Amino acid sequence: MAKNLTTRAEDYSKWYNDLVIQADLAENSGVRGCMVIKPYGYGIWEKMQAELDRMFKETGHENAYFPLFIPKSYFSKEASHVDGFAKECAVVTHYRLKNDENGKVIVDPDARLDEELIVRPTSETIIWDTYRKWIQSYRDLPLLINQWANVVRWEMRTRLFLRTSEFLWQEGHTAHATKIEALDEAKQMINVYADFVENYMAVPVVIGVKTESERFAGALETYCIEALMQDGKALQAGTSHFLGQNFAKAFDVKFANKEGKQEYVWATSWGVSTRLMGALVMTHSDDNGLVLPPKLAPNQVVIIPIYRGEEEFNAVSEVALTLQKELRAKGLRVKFDNRDTQKPGWKFNEYELKGVPVRIAVGPKDIANGTFEVARRDTLKKEVVLKNLVVDKVAGLMDEIQENLFVRAVSNRTKLTTKVASYDEFKKVLDEKGGFISAHWDGTAETEEKIKKETKATIRCIPLNEKKEEGICIITGNPSKERVLFAKAY
Amino acid sequence: MAKNLTTRAEDYSKWYNDLVIQADLAENSGVRGCMVIKPYGYGIWEKMQAELDRMFKETGHENAYFPLFIPKSYFSKEASHVDGFAKECAVVTHYRLKNDENGKVIVDPDARLDEELIVRPTSETIIWDTYRKWIQSYRDLPLLINQWANVVRWEMRTRLFLRTSEFLWQEGHTAHATKIEALDEAKQMINVYADFVENYMAVPVVIGVKTESERFAGALETYCIEALMQDGKALQAGTSHFLGQNFAKAFDVKFANKEGKQEYVWATSWGVSTRLMGALVMTHSDDNGLVLPPKLAPNQVVIIPIYRGEEEFNAVSEVALTLQKELRAKGLRVKFDNRDTQKPGWKFNEYELKGVPVRIAVGPKDIANGTFEVARRDTLKKEVVLKNLVVDKVAGLMDEIQENLFVRAVSNRTKLTTKVASYDEFKKVLDEKGGFISAHWDGTAETEEKIKKETKATIRCIPLNEKKEEGICIITGNPSKERVLFAKAY
Repeated sequence: MAKNLTTRAEDYSKWYNDLVIQADLAENSGVRGCMVIKPYGYGIWEKMQAELDRMFKETGHENAYFPLFIPKSYFSKEASHVDGFAKECAVVTHYRLKNDENGKVIVDPDARLDEELIVRPTSETIIWDTYRKWIQSYRDLPLLINQWANVVRWEMRTRLFLRTSEFLWQEGHTAHATKIEALDEAKQMINVYADFVENYMAVPVVIGVKTESERFAGALETYCIEALMQDGKALQAGTSHFLGQNFAKAFDVKFANKEGKQEYVWATSWGVSTRLMGALVMTHSDDNGLVLPPKLAPNQVVIIPIYRGEEEFNAVSEVALTLQKELRAKGLRVKFDNRDTQKPGWKFNEYELKGVPVRIAVGPKDIANGTFEVARRDTLKKEVVLKNLVVDKVAGLMDEIQENLFVRAVSNRTKLTTKVASYDEFKKVLDEKGGFISAHWDGTAETEEKIKKETKATIRCIPLNEKKEEGICIITGNPSKERVLFAKAY
Repeated sequence: MAKNLTTRAEDYSKWYNDLVIQADLAENSGVRGCMVIKPYGYGIWEKMQAELDRMFKETGHENAYFPLFIPKSYFSKEASHVDGFAKECAVVTHYRLKNDENGKVIVDPDARLDEELIVRPTSETIIWDTYRKWIQSYRDLPLLINQWANVVRWEMRTRLFLRTSEFLWQEGHTAHATKIEALDEAKQMINVYADFVENYMAVPVVIGVKTESERFAGALETYCIEALMQDGKALQAGTSHFLGQNFAKAFDVKFANKEGKQEYVWATSWGVSTRLMGALVMTHSDDNGLVLPPKLAPNQVVIIPIYRGEEEFNAVSEVALTLQKELRAKGLRVKFDNRDTQKPGWKFNEYELKGVPVRIAVGPKDIANGTFEVARRDTLKKEVVLKNLVVDKVAGLMDEIQENLFVRAVSNRTKLTTKVASYDEFKKVLDEKGGFISAHWDGTAETEEKIKKETKATIRCIPLNEKKEEGICIITGNPSKERVLFAKAY
């Protein structure tokens, strides 16, 4: 077990926080609710960005950049949108500092803005104000744009990656000539997200739609992917919104269709954020520290030399460097940690804490025997591997570990998913076991609200890819067309 | 000449603005001083980012992310720093909106922040506040970190890319155990910038140091690269600062050296921004539109089909698609524009306006003759090339055009650089010709200020790589150790 790391059993929440800090992923800054993403954490985020960016481009999207600030009047144009975000808006009111009579730095009262600027919590309004100028004809559609950006949603209680006042994300904003095309886009992007989260992050997700009360402010339909953490709490990993013509109407964005008739444009928006880092950590990691899927690990393999004295160091280094070269030729990201300032045991712990998928140790005995010691981070199992087999072995482990993490997470989710038939059972499971609870619901906001109020569980989604099964609502006994997934959530 | 594009001779400033807008690089947003970077412009910026990021990593730097907001008290800790930026700070004072009695959205007066937050104009203060926690021992040094971010410097008069209230940039912030190491880092990074700007953007630069009055607020030495635009105005393309121990002292960042003694850390910071887009446009483009160096062009080659009717279209498409495949196999970025909605002439203009380095046209006659028409954007010359030679020809053109643009820009700069021996001559050259003026200066801020006040020309830099030549100051007649470069600047 890593030094100072709280165990999950002891205090899951503290374990998470300790881990994020000790593995050098992120830390709190001196600015309330804002985090510093440290190089190691940012390195993982960069790998996520690269894959997502490639997927967006392969589905025809281009990147662009829109202003950080949104005039308050724009923000107010779509009524439900402003309602949804008003309580968490950072507002810029002045544009200058000055020294007062005592030489103290103060905000210059003479430099008050005529209209306050909102630091974007999301960019629909500023983007749709721009799209009005870009869209005249059906020939200008579809418009498929993504933005990588920082956004600010003021939070009172924050947690590293999961809930911070400033976070990094991407937001796609697309415009379409028809409703069906916009709906298809929203569905396509939730599937892109599911593909990324399952196949790169090795985190299984349920694809579903949100209930009306859980929808994005301004959306007609919100598609989502929901993951389950080891502690049985759900985490919304990504959302894709069908916005109908709401923003087009609010910002007067019309196009001439093929018949020359003016129509309002149909919209989608979709986003994932640095929150995914939290999902990654909480799905795979253990009491020894971070566990990273090979596809996103900044270092996939670390080689640690075991030696005493310069002669042994030189002999071991030669073998290690050759192996590093061979593994890199296979496309692997390999680090040879030849620092003399730390002992092997310290290094073992360090890379375990940092979740490097495979650790290779090599010392004089290994050289004599023509072997390497290969350790997997996911299972913590060690194995002695012959020199001529080691490259293929380690290359193969990349797929094996990636697969194992996913299978393990699916198995964990299966264990933590329970079908219930009554509200009593619902409460008992929620209390004793947690996880996803699959239950019948009558489809009303009142029932949903009652359950949320009494149990803190929310409807995470109405799953899209499950067999529909009719039944009766666990609360009201009214007919239900399908089961929905409840859980307490991050 | 492109439709509606002002010529350079007519109005250089308007030409620039027209070009940026018509080539779909960027446009003004509804937010004062903030621009929208459109997909085509952002595509070029992404190419710049990718190369710079690779260069930073190759020189040992890692990326990280620090908060957007800086508490006012942090910002005030380094005196000359706050003086330099106070007049252009966007200030967040509130964290919530609400509806007033009439349902109007207003800033909630009850949600006033205890301490105002500055939207970062640069991140030295928040980063050095963080480094205090990261640095204890000489083993923690050097710390080599870069951040890709948006920053805000409130501007009254803005120009797309050149001067905007919000812009995108990277900022490197490094910490070192010794003065000499920090100085070497600052010099290394200005050389990395020069390498990038000359070899990717094909924009020649003079590497130099700033005079004391032109230094970054908080720096002991500012290294810079200065480029010259076609209109004879200079543009600062990148800066790298040696910050001494100023920020370490302001934020109390000390380390235990090898002898266990506490010392203040030495610092550098360095940055380039979306301003480089302006330099790129203004260095190479002409009255027909944008001219892009092949290394940064989103599309390096465009293939345009010439045809009447479906049969010809199919025949021409087959040939075009084969060529596209062959060119892509050579690693080129190729677009085949098979849109039926626009005529070839329109497409020719469009890609000329957008600066695509090579245009290939192919029609039935070309098929009959086994040829293609190949046009270069830089020289606007057309050539008929045999089918079996076209791939090598076009691949070769990439280097040729990249080289030609650089040579042309160097030649332009040489023409626009004048050595002067008197202040009269200085004023005459500045007035009639513009460009870089190489002159002797006595090294005092008073003389520098006098020249600036009287002519609007500033000392762009004291060149680093030129032969020192003693002389006398053009204003005071006092001795001068070397010539410095004056110019009016963007």
